[in-house]
Amino acid sequence: MVEHSGLDIMCLNKYSPASSSSSSSNAEKKLFSKLKVSLTKKYPQKNAETLSAQYGTNLLLIGVSVMLALAQHGPAVKKEHLLAFITALMLVQLVWMLCYMIRRERERSAVPERDAHAGTSWIRGGLTMLALLSLIMDAFRIGYFVGYHSCVSAVLGVYPIVHALHTISQVHFLWFHIKDVIKKYETFESRFGVIHAVFTNLLLWCNGVMSEAEHFLNNYRRRLTALGYANLSTGVCVCPDCNCTTSVCSMFSTSLYYLYPFNIEYHIFVSAMLFVMWKNIGRTLDLHSNHKRPSTRSPCLLLGPLLGLLVLASSVTVLVVYLIHVEKSSQAAVSMFYCYGVVMLSCMCVASGAGLLVYRVEDWPMDMGSNPSRTLDTELLLGSSLGSWLMSWCSVVAVAAAGRSSPSFRWTCLAYSLLLVLEKCVQNLFIVESLYRRSRDPDDVPVPEIFSVTPAPVVPPYDGIVNRAYETQDKLCTTLGGETPEDRAAFSRKQTDVTLPVGNRLNVTPGRKRQILKNITIFLFMCNISLWILPAFGCRPQYDSGLELETFGYSIWTTVLNLAFPMNLFYRMHSVASLFEVFRKV
Amino acid sequence: MVEHSGLDIMCLNKYSPASSSSSSSNAEKKLFSKLKVSLTKKYPQKNAETLSAQYGTNLLLIGVSVMLALAQHGPAVKKEHLLAFITALMLVQLVWMLCYMIRRERERSAVPERDAHAGTSWIRGGLTMLALLSLIMDAFRIGYFVGYHSCVSAVLGVYPIVHALHTISQVHFLWFHIKDVIKKYETFESRFGVIHAVFTNLLLWCNGVMSEAEHFLNNYRRRLTALGYANLSTGVCVCPDCNCTTSVCSMFSTSLYYLYPFNIEYHIFVSAMLFVMWKNIGRTLDLHSNHKRPSTRSPCLLLGPLLGLLVLASSVTVLVVYLIHVEKSSQAAVSMFYCYGVVMLSCMCVASGAGLLVYRVEDWPMDMGSNPSRTLDTELLLGSSLGSWLMSWCSVVAVAAAGRSSPSFRWTCLAYSLLLVLEKCVQNLFIVESLYRRSRDPDDVPVPEIFSVTPAPVVPPYDGIVNRAYETQDKLCTTLGGETPEDRAAFSRKQTDVTLPVGNRLNVTPGRKRQILKNITIFLFMCNISLWILPAFGCRPQYDSGLELETFGYSIWTTVLNLAFPMNLFYRMHSVASLFEVFRKV
Repeated sequence: MVEHSGLDIMCLNKYSPASSSSSSSNAEKKLFSKLKVSLTKKYPQKNAETLSAQYGTNLLLIGVSVMLALAQHGPAVKKEHLLAFITALMLVQLVWMLCYMIRRERERSAVPERDAHAGTSWIRGGLTMLALLSLIMDAFRIGYFVGYHSCVSAVLGVYPIVHALHTISQVHFLWFHIKDVIKKYETFESRFGVIHAVFTNLLLWCNGVMSEAEHFLNNYRRRLTALGYANLSTGVCVCPDCNCTTSVCSMFSTSLYYLYPFNIEYHIFVSAMLFVMWKNIGRTLDLHSNHKRPSTRSPCLLLGPLLGLLVLASSVTVLVVYLIHVEKSSQAAVSMFYCYGVVMLSCMCVASGAGLLVYRVEDWPMDMGSNPSRTLDTELLLGSSLGSWLMSWCSVVAVAAAGRSSPSFRWTCLAYSLLLVLEKCVQNLFIVESLYRRSRDPDDVPVPEIFSVTPAPVVPPYDGIVNRAYETQDKLCTTLGGETPEDRAAFSRKQTDVTLPVGNRLNVTPGRKRQILKNITIFLFMCNISLWILPAFGCRPQYDSGLELETFGYSIWTTVLNLAFPMNLFYRMHSVASLFEVFRKV
Repeated sequence: MVEHSGLDIMCLNKYSPASSSSSSSNAEKKLFSKLKVSLTKKYPQKNAETLSAQYGTNLLLIGVSVMLALAQHGPAVKKEHLLAFITALMLVQLVWMLCYMIRRERERSAVPERDAHAGTSWIRGGLTMLALLSLIMDAFRIGYFVGYHSCVSAVLGVYPIVHALHTISQVHFLWFHIKDVIKKYETFESRFGVIHAVFTNLLLWCNGVMSEAEHFLNNYRRRLTALGYANLSTGVCVCPDCNCTTSVCSMFSTSLYYLYPFNIEYHIFVSAMLFVMWKNIGRTLDLHSNHKRPSTRSPCLLLGPLLGLLVLASSVTVLVVYLIHVEKSSQAAVSMFYCYGVVMLSCMCVASGAGLLVYRVEDWPMDMGSNPSRTLDTELLLGSSLGSWLMSWCSVVAVAAAGRSSPSFRWTCLAYSLLLVLEKCVQNLFIVESLYRRSRDPDDVPVPEIFSVTPAPVVPPYDGIVNRAYETQDKLCTTLGGETPEDRAAFSRKQTDVTLPVGNRLNVTPGRKRQILKNITIFLFMCNISLWILPAFGCRPQYDSGLELETFGYSIWTTVLNLAFPMNLFYRMHSVASLFEVFRKV
């Protein structure tokens, strides 16, 4: 009846003299007030998303264009300009985070919805470690500035201080607010704040990548000139004009390059997490899928960790040997690296392939529910593979094009490149399948894709490992004996929800399979850490071999490498995180 | 009862002597047969998606790495190698399309599901036009080969023939099968076939882009050397060693460059359409949202088309004047282009902004249903904006870094660059909002986001244009007089589904708004065509101004341009297509 009376009023109003005589100025006033409401409160979500994404992208592009100008070492654009821009962005982010936290604190009574999948505690722990290393880096930078303060720009001193502040408050934000699903103020403040944070971190990542690439390129140029390949100037040295007032300046600047890899990973990971937070704004959570599984007792782990540790130890050895020998006999060092890589990648291919086979034998259904965090994981894995795939295919083309005078390691290089492509393909498949598998909790009955009851002969699976799926089934069978008609009806209803794990009908039990999968995952985890350490700390044979340089020329090949290496480093770190997730899930 | 007896059999089987004595070899046999089934029929969709995406990406990357080697003009990798690779890919796609069509023909009784949003007939018509121009290009290539057949590789003759065959059968495929939602054979054959087609077309696009970029770079180098900026060799000429046997060889080779833009657009559009088809594989269509709206009578269109035609005509004039003058007085030509650009982009910003304002006044709800075609449209718009945004920001940095001796047009260049960024932002917002708006059919009652009945005074909107929303409301009001209680209840129920268009309460009627939107859309449509024509046919002041070259250096700036121009051309063509879609929808 309420609606009806409301409508009555409207109908009356429409034909009342007051409304028919309403002036056009009144209508205009309404138009503007309507416009105001529409621009602030009711702004459609899709548009707010597009607008904020465009804002963030342009922020990044401004930074990138300044970096490109910097790479040219011209007189007009200096490092200070870039650092000032980044500092301003960080300050804006700091203010936004502060406002957000204060507002949340004030509304403490209203508990915000939280996305259980976003930023698990172990990933936040890992980020805290990386953040600590970044803080050490900031301390070194401040030390460097103090040493040269008489002749360098003040920006070089302000930047590390703001960066340290930014790091501390960002880690605090990650621990307490990254899971928030923002429902209020969603249009402008939150969307723009979060996307600003995402792109500020991406820009910091780009900055780190550029500094590192420059360091490698300078080494590369020096080595090329020494080998007589080309006569390239070693870039303009950006050393300050005065002497260091403390005695440890050079220590600071050289140590920085060992800390860059951690700083780089820190920023890219934070931006991925914040991106998930941005995707979550205004989202309605599916409560069914948004719960955490209780952790289960892990089965016997021996082979995987052992082999993994072996790989890790030998990688560190290879790294050290490589770095010592590359200056003197680069061919031997590169050859050794490729041989080692071929063996390692083959093992990884076999392990991932075995994991996929286990999944093929098992018939667990896939979980296709909405989960922005997982979708992003998958897309980032595939996207970041592109860089090193391109690098590998370039190596293949270079080997195919190389003449007879080319170095002896070219066949190993070919095998290494092809295996790298294959390994990433198979590993991606394994990780994606693992992430999309429904968790295999016995209590958590899987929903079948196609329901089928096959009367196959069943082998009792009791070989030491408790199989709860069987226990329930046995119980069901025994209760069927003395049942009431209601029970029977309820049971047949239940049957449509239950599918019997196919693995049970075979010799390999789910427990055994779980053990195999856990071992494979831990092995791949260690291998990916090794493959991150090797290039991150200077083992980059593609710079030293000279094979691809002949086919592609200096400028194309360095461009490819400058693109491929950061992507590859991110890929490895991201696989490590994903594999840890898989390890906990299997 | 059926389920119950099925379970009884299973329970019996499990404890029967026959099954408990099953040998391990039997279990192994089962394992393998299970594996076979799992690898062919039941392969999970997500994995098939990942696997096929990886296959396609690697195909593309192989091609790209050969292109990169070609760009170096080394002795080992030749154009023939690339063309042979592409020809092989096209042949594979031809075989797949043939198989697919034969199979569909055989199962003609089972009508496949079709996605109404994929590949509308007007887009297919446009593609057919582009395909015809591509066929002319193939004819020119064959003519060129005939002229030089004694000294060029046979691949140069085979390639255009296969390309022509490929084009014809692909257009046939687009007309009759692009809307298919493949449900069967989804795992391997279809997924791999479609993704192969997607990436073959992308590779053909890359090849076209590279050939065009090379042409521009050669001109650029020639001009730079003439101006004394740098001493760059004009690239290795790839002219054949013998004389042409016919008299029209040079005509063929120069005409090719005027046809390249169409060929390039053809391939990128086909790959986008095929990508939608790939995303549709195994999808369950939402039948409610999968219907086409009947076309409505279009309101009076005058201002939009007139202004649009004016823009188009003046753009062609500017193009001709620019091309004539750039060789002699490049500064004047560049300056003229930037002035024209500033005026045009300002008009476009105003038009898009007005469109957005109209949407803000209106309160039509958004349609957030699943529609892969629309999602892809949105992402491609945003993604392809990146290229020219980067170029614009680089120009801004260059202007900021330029000294006093820099050319006079630098402030126009700054305004042009900033307006370009703004225009793309606003236009993207307008297009995305238009695409996500629910169609404004009066019969098709919109579902409100938040239900609210405000008793506002209503102004009768009768100003010549029929307003059906009012007619129904009037009817409702009059029927409320002599109603039964049931009617009243039914009516108040109906009210919860109906929201009154807010526009009705204001002076601007929906018909008027529709007219405004249509005019804006047609104007933007023409502007985007102009902005496609200008760079596609050689008006690229960023090559000729020399302003950015000083800040970024030759290699960085040409890399940025080689990235940005193809993306920008695609962006313009894609906006044209999207705006046409918007025009039909509004």
